[in-house]
Amino acid sequence: MSDPVGPLDASRSPRFAGPATFARLPRRDQVERCDIGVVGIPFDAGTSYRPGARFGPAAIREGSRLLRPYHPGLDVAPFSRAQVADCGDIVANPFAIDEALDQIAEGARALLADGTVPIVLGGDHTVALGVLRTMPEPVAVLHFDAHLDTWDTYFGARHTHGTPFRRAVEEGLVDTERLVHVGIRGPLYGSDDLDRDAALGYRILSTMDVAEMGVRAVAARVLEIVGDAPLYVSVDIDVLDPAHAPGTGTPEAGGLTSRELLGILRLLTDARIVGADIVEVSPAYDHAEITSIAAAHVAYELICLVARRIG
Amino acid sequence: MSDPVGPLDASRSPRFAGPATFARLPRRDQVERCDIGVVGIPFDAGTSYRPGARFGPAAIREGSRLLRPYHPGLDVAPFSRAQVADCGDIVANPFAIDEALDQIAEGARALLADGTVPIVLGGDHTVALGVLRTMPEPVAVLHFDAHLDTWDTYFGARHTHGTPFRRAVEEGLVDTERLVHVGIRGPLYGSDDLDRDAALGYRILSTMDVAEMGVRAVAARVLEIVGDAPLYVSVDIDVLDPAHAPGTGTPEAGGLTSRELLGILRLLTDARIVGADIVEVSPAYDHAEITSIAAAHVAYELICLVARRIG
Amino acid sequence: MSDPVGPLDASRSPRFAGPATFARLPRRDQVERCDIGVVGIPFDAGTSYRPGARFGPAAIREGSRLLRPYHPGLDVAPFSRAQVADCGDIVANPFAIDEALDQIAEGARALLADGTVPIVLGGDHTVALGVLRTMPEPVAVLHFDAHLDTWDTYFGARHTHGTPFRRAVEEGLVDTERLVHVGIRGPLYGSDDLDRDAALGYRILSTMDVAEMGVRAVAARVLEIVGDAPLYVSVDIDVLDPAHAPGTGTPEAGGLTSRELLGILRLLTDARIVGADIVEVSPAYDHAEITSIAAAHVAYELICLVARRIG
Amino acid sequence: MSDPVGPLDASRSPRFAGPATFARLPRRDQVERCDIGVVGIPFDAGTSYRPGARFGPAAIREGSRLLRPYHPGLDVAPFSRAQVADCGDIVANPFAIDEALDQIAEGARALLADGTVPIVLGGDHTVALGVLRTMPEPVAVLHFDAHLDTWDTYFGARHTHGTPFRRAVEEGLVDTERLVHVGIRGPLYGSDDLDRDAALGYRILSTMDVAEMGVRAVAARVLEIVGDAPLYVSVDIDVLDPAHAPGTGTPEAGGLTSRELLGILRLLTDARIVGADIVEVSPAYDHAEITSIAAAHVAYELICLVARRIG
Amino acid sequence: MSDPVGPLDASRSPRFAGPATFARLPRRDQVERCDIGVVGIPFDAGTSYRPGARFGPAAIREGSRLLRPYHPGLDVAPFSRAQVADCGDIVANPFAIDEALDQIAEGARALLADGTVPIVLGGDHTVALGVLRTMPEPVAVLHFDAHLDTWDTYFGARHTHGTPFRRAVEEGLVDTERLVHVGIRGPLYGSDDLDRDAALGYRILSTMDVAEMGVRAVAARVLEIVGDAPLYVSVDIDVLDPAHAPGTGTPEAGGLTSRELLGILRLLTDARIVGADIVEVSPAYDHAEITSIAAAHVAYELICLVARRIG
Amino acid sequence: MSDPVGPLDASRSPRFAGPATFARLPRRDQVERCDIGVVGIPFDAGTSYRPGARFGPAAIREGSRLLRPYHPGLDVAPFSRAQVADCGDIVANPFAIDEALDQIAEGARALLADGTVPIVLGGDHTVALGVLRTMPEPVAVLHFDAHLDTWDTYFGARHTHGTPFRRAVEEGLVDTERLVHVGIRGPLYGSDDLDRDAALGYRILSTMDVAEMGVRAVAARVLEIVGDAPLYVSVDIDVLDPAHAPGTGTPEAGGLTSRELLGILRLLTDARIVGADIVEVSPAYDHAEITSIAAAHVAYELICLVARRIG
Repeated sequence: MSDPVGPLDASRSPRFAGPATFARLPRRDQVERCDIGVVGIPFDAGTSYRPGARFGPAAIREGSRLLRPYHPGLDVAPFSRAQVADCGDIVANPFAIDEALDQIAEGARALLADGTVPIVLGGDHTVALGVLRTMPEPVAVLHFDAHLDTWDTYFGARHTHGTPFRRAVEEGLVDTERLVHVGIRGPLYGSDDLDRDAALGYRILSTMDVAEMGVRAVAARVLEIVGDAPLYVSVDIDVLDPAHAPGTGTPEAGGLTSRELLGILRLLTDARIVGADIVEVSPAYDHAEITSIAAAHVAYELICLVARRIG
Repeated sequence: MSDPVGPLDASRSPRFAGPATFARLPRRDQVERCDIGVVGIPFDAGTSYRPGARFGPAAIREGSRLLRPYHPGLDVAPFSRAQVADCGDIVANPFAIDEALDQIAEGARALLADGTVPIVLGGDHTVALGVLRTMPEPVAVLHFDAHLDTWDTYFGARHTHGTPFRRAVEEGLVDTERLVHVGIRGPLYGSDDLDRDAALGYRILSTMDVAEMGVRAVAARVLEIVGDAPLYVSVDIDVLDPAHAPGTGTPEAGGLTSRELLGILRLLTDARIVGADIVEVSPAYDHAEITSIAAAHVAYELICLVARRIG
Repeated sequence: MSDPVGPLDASRSPRFAGPATFARLPRRDQVERCDIGVVGIPFDAGTSYRPGARFGPAAIREGSRLLRPYHPGLDVAPFSRAQVADCGDIVANPFAIDEALDQIAEGARALLADGTVPIVLGGDHTVALGVLRTMPEPVAVLHFDAHLDTWDTYFGARHTHGTPFRRAVEEGLVDTERLVHVGIRGPLYGSDDLDRDAALGYRILSTMDVAEMGVRAVAARVLEIVGDAPLYVSVDIDVLDPAHAPGTGTPEAGGLTSRELLGILRLLTDARIVGADIVEVSPAYDHAEITSIAAAHVAYELICLVARRIG
Repeated sequence: MSDPVGPLDASRSPRFAGPATFARLPRRDQVERCDIGVVGIPFDAGTSYRPGARFGPAAIREGSRLLRPYHPGLDVAPFSRAQVADCGDIVANPFAIDEALDQIAEGARALLADGTVPIVLGGDHTVALGVLRTMPEPVAVLHFDAHLDTWDTYFGARHTHGTPFRRAVEEGLVDTERLVHVGIRGPLYGSDDLDRDAALGYRILSTMDVAEMGVRAVAARVLEIVGDAPLYVSVDIDVLDPAHAPGTGTPEAGGLTSRELLGILRLLTDARIVGADIVEVSPAYDHAEITSIAAAHVAYELICLVARRIG
Repeated sequence: MSDPVGPLDASRSPRFAGPATFARLPRRDQVERCDIGVVGIPFDAGTSYRPGARFGPAAIREGSRLLRPYHPGLDVAPFSRAQVADCGDIVANPFAIDEALDQIAEGARALLADGTVPIVLGGDHTVALGVLRTMPEPVAVLHFDAHLDTWDTYFGARHTHGTPFRRAVEEGLVDTERLVHVGIRGPLYGSDDLDRDAALGYRILSTMDVAEMGVRAVAARVLEIVGDAPLYVSVDIDVLDPAHAPGTGTPEAGGLTSRELLGILRLLTDARIVGADIVEVSPAYDHAEITSIAAAHVAYELICLVARRIG
Repeated sequence: MSDPVGPLDASRSPRFAGPATFARLPRRDQVERCDIGVVGIPFDAGTSYRPGARFGPAAIREGSRLLRPYHPGLDVAPFSRAQVADCGDIVANPFAIDEALDQIAEGARALLADGTVPIVLGGDHTVALGVLRTMPEPVAVLHFDAHLDTWDTYFGARHTHGTPFRRAVEEGLVDTERLVHVGIRGPLYGSDDLDRDAALGYRILSTMDVAEMGVRAVAARVLEIVGDAPLYVSVDIDVLDPAHAPGTGTPEAGGLTSRELLGILRLLTDARIVGADIVEVSPAYDHAEITSIAAAHVAYELICLVARRIG
């Protein structure tokens, strides 16, 4: 098998030059195979407050220009160990949510059929449902978010960015013994929000839990819950505090630092990640790319975790 | 009939204080009758590029705090001459365009039934169709915009911010002898865009025409076209140059100045305005409220024009 | 007694629509009684560095649109348990500080006379003195701030945003056994600043103390100091680090996170809060509303604490 | 007499280096005499809407780093022809307007006593009154502004940024035969605003007049009005359109371009300028220094006009 | 010969999706031939004030997503008439200006050898020299700029963004009978700047000339000067007023509007353009992409002019 | 010996007024001697990604206006205990890195010859090498940074912002037994980066180490490493998280808080600091001065530490 093709060499091409692929990696059509595929889903018609996550994939790619090829914390050179490529964007109808979900599923399915682990750049959280629908078996879910995203409908709409993790349970896409939200905080609609969420099977490690337990205990608890099941990791960037991620649609004060989020992820070396998304980056509200850069680092952590198990 | 209730007195309550109604006018429920009603339609699900016009009404209201009660150019004190009020927002389903159009029409119809001339704060340009559907007879249309907005469909959707003025013709809502676009500029999809637009009945005064003719000749030509028919004025804020209106969704370089736009409007004292909208203000892209302030001044010009004829 | 009227229902009216009252709550004139009143004091003539807190009330109200009606941490639905309303703005003369203080006191006194616990949205810190003057008995004070605010005069002025907590002692408005500053940090004018502050009766829990003690110990110490006396809570948003609250007038590096601030407040269930303010939000320096959103969450915590004791 | 000391040489010290004096000119204490003195008055307690002009002098100085020493349009090298220096800031009490006016007058008087023509960097428009009070004889006034600034009082205050040109007439500081506003636009409080303004002696060349007459005719008309009397030029930066000057406190849509403003000034070679101010630059609302740079260019035009007559 | 491959179809792929090539055109490696090539040169080591034009190519590409395939003013569908492609970025050493110029020339030469007319996206103005060095014969030059860019050296450096048009004359790269600057304004170092510039052969149409002559007369005069010689068009985006182009490195107040710049270009249908650049877009100072969008429109005008003559 | 001259008195001159020297301290030419000198080095030609640190010194000085003269944590009034002055900027050729390094060394040497401890405001990290070259003996180095800065070359250039700490070892400028990086994080080029760095003598306390050890243990470990050797402290502001320091050139997610950085510094009372720099502040990417303010506070901590040992 051919050696992986890596990103542009920064000693020969400055990081501000060259193509706007994720981390300046090769495009899918430039490589023979693709073990891990970064794919954009520029869709935000499911947003209930500040829109703009449709520009998320382009922004995260720009924010990823500074990534370098070796992760010292995990001691892995992901782009040498696995073929990572930028698979471009999945087109989704901005005016028809259900059709968009079908397009998303079709796009994700093509990647999976190709043996590619998808690392999705959203887009709003609606897109997670489209991707989950393509998983070959019910998956464990590690969901970083300020919000539960297990509400039923908004204005009669069943498919929005506030409902994917309820739909995923209803559609049998996930392993209801292995579901966990991390970073939940802020006010809810009512106390039964929590009851209904628990009834679906979700466990909660709130932001306050993270603050009190510390990242090592949180990671351990997450691994305990998800076990060795195939794991889908869904990262709503609003799990971060607005100071760390101003560029998002439904910000809540009092969130995680990017150091905590990256720290938890880094400890999940025993997890068996089969797909992931980073969603809700809304660049119009970002400043100096700090949200995009945080999102790019999250994607990089996930890529490294997957690459470690591949090689 | 009782004297109109005016805005908060700025000599007693600083402009940065008090309610966030348009120009700090009374709310509809605080006055007996309402001759001219400013109404928000925070809806942007019809947007094809930068979203965010859902926050337009709130932003324009904040941008209107500086308006004062006397217009020296038109020599009218609109809030004394007519009862102007803030009629709040019409709620429109953000996840279902057609349902939203129905809600918009219902809301606008209630105003008209009440004898109120609606001055709509959008929202994206989709909302214009909802309002036009409530006009008691086919209206002349004066449409300020960088774009024609007479395309047929986007991704199969018939109701988006790029199609209202085609739909309006098809639905018989407008007087096809009295339609004019002002400020058109920028590239199109193809040369037949212009042919189809003309076939619908629209005349065009492009940005370059405005630059060469000057505001007086443009206003005269507009009046010639629209005559004394009931007139609907629709102002897409992107008719302004991005320097004057950065806070919008589909900016095109080379546009009108706010001085030109206000100058043309001010000359339309002979027009019989029965409704108007100011749309596509997307505050996340604005700076120092310059777009919102321009939009507030446009609304004020329109209110003055209507008020002059009412008194 | 009638059930409280709550905020607009977000399942029927999107959060970006509807009136710009705090949390989209009813206005005072829409409800019969008001247990807890959110009131703006748009005044900043007492500011010594970056002005602009006059726009704070409007900004915090916009930033409060995302608040939801149930607080899971405190297990309370404040808007059902108590009648909370937006009492509008108290007008204060921007050109005459002493007159403004009288206006503020008059406005606050009207609320208290009505049985309403005031939650004040500033405005600069000068406004706290006006509110304290209306308390029926000397109150304990919990003061979150980077600065002591117990200086004597600036340029000969006795009433500025740097002096309210000295004046409050001098005027006998506070219980000098029960005063505490939390979050103090940064350089001072001289070592006697601390001596004079202590002589007035203030205890200090500095930012470094918070970092080392943790939020639980801080909350416990605060409760020990303030006991069961009627408590006034004054939150200068600059107690937060500039990363969390860029939109303020006298920022100091090295502050609290919004998580720490909210965390301390949440633990004060045993405190008997009789009034509170959130001041020094200066929106012109904010980005993506992160400061306003933090301030709105602080107000929400305070409302919840008060509501728990009311029901 | 010694040759003037000029600014730092940009071929030896990059423009982004060196002291933050205006145009990197010498400070007053570094030169023996000073023909033209740039002086800051960081005061904004007279502001009725967006504050922040207290930071104007520092911002305009930063925006002046790019100025070069030769003006081709006027064919003058002002810094060689006259000794121009940065006279620092006049301190004005931020909490006491009347005391501040006295401090401003004292500071300006010291310059005049020294034979220095003052070019003032504001601060809000209140400061103009302080400077006018020091003129040795009643002066003609050329006033660029969106607003008349001849109102009587705000909230009982006689000295604010909306009143200096009424006070100046009342105090006999100006030649009431030689007063002209340029750039007036936007709504007023009432039609009598214009009557009262005219009764004070002011002539108006509105923004629409400038648009229709062109800069040459405007300049000619200005010269006709002010004649060869000693002339005070007062430039409120809000005479520019918000697109050109977002960084100001009371923006009005539809203003002058910076090209028009500079163009009119450049044609005033026959005017006998004895003092000038550029006020109402509020940097917190600026972007990429465009307002500060425009203000710096206005100051430079004025310096060139004065220098031409000195040599 | 095969039909040109056009940009992504916006009716099937939303403009915010898909590759970040200029106007979403095909990459050079996706097409057989390339008549007109858009190529980035992300280099800014020649900048004397605000740097950051190294990010210009990426920003202009993002700003070009809204361009559509038909230009009504010129009645041309450029992407159908000629094969236009995105040729990626030319890498240039950020730490060695002379080496960078060699790399730029090598890159541009490859395009020319391929029969491609280069439309360069800078980068700072230094890059123009590298491109001019590859022209097969001395070219006429139409140079839009606020500055002459014919200085000799800065700090001993002969190759910076202020010197390319002197070097180009000295190196015999240009036809000294056919050189014109348009848009010059602002102060200079001395009166001999103009003399030296004229001695090199440059004619000047200043910003004030454009304002007084109008775009038609300016275009006619330009055509008179450049005749039917092969023409290189160099557009420094700072020719625009800072209101229209805040995102640039050496802004000067009082510039052209984007409408004027586009208007002049549009009238140059008789010019024989053999190469062009758009330089000095510095995105860190831009807002809402207004500078990038203006630059993208300038590139589009130039592409259309070239395409008209190719078909 | 004369008493030190302190900064402008804030009770007589508002902090927003007066000269833009660091903390409004006297300039070097205003005082007889200078124990501690704040000196700007506005140079950024060694930057590999986002440029703009050339504007760092001016921005940090503006951000220092709020500093007050007494540090309660260290119980020192630095400006009374030592003569601290603003020594202006060292000019460095922006187009020739090696010449610039010579100019920097010459400038720093002049300070040292004068008995002044230099506190350098960068500029990019290249400037550290110039300053280190002037140290009279090899120094211990405490280096706060996200990056190692011990790479060999970029594009063949040996002197860039990524290489100073390798060059310093090679040139024998530092005590290789006493070198420590604090705050390292983020991906590297390869695992041998760490090996080579260690071979040069550097110890690493990563951001994760700081998170787990806490500031007290980190400070203790630093003191253990650097001992009582003369110590150079180099603070790359990107050691802070992008939330705390958006205004920098190579941001990495997951960094230190400003509280941690200031907390570590404050504990180094036993260190013998002989020089220091604060570099990589790039104001074009900053917001509301939060990065500049953090940098100003870092400089203040360093000044206080030096002043404590001087008195």
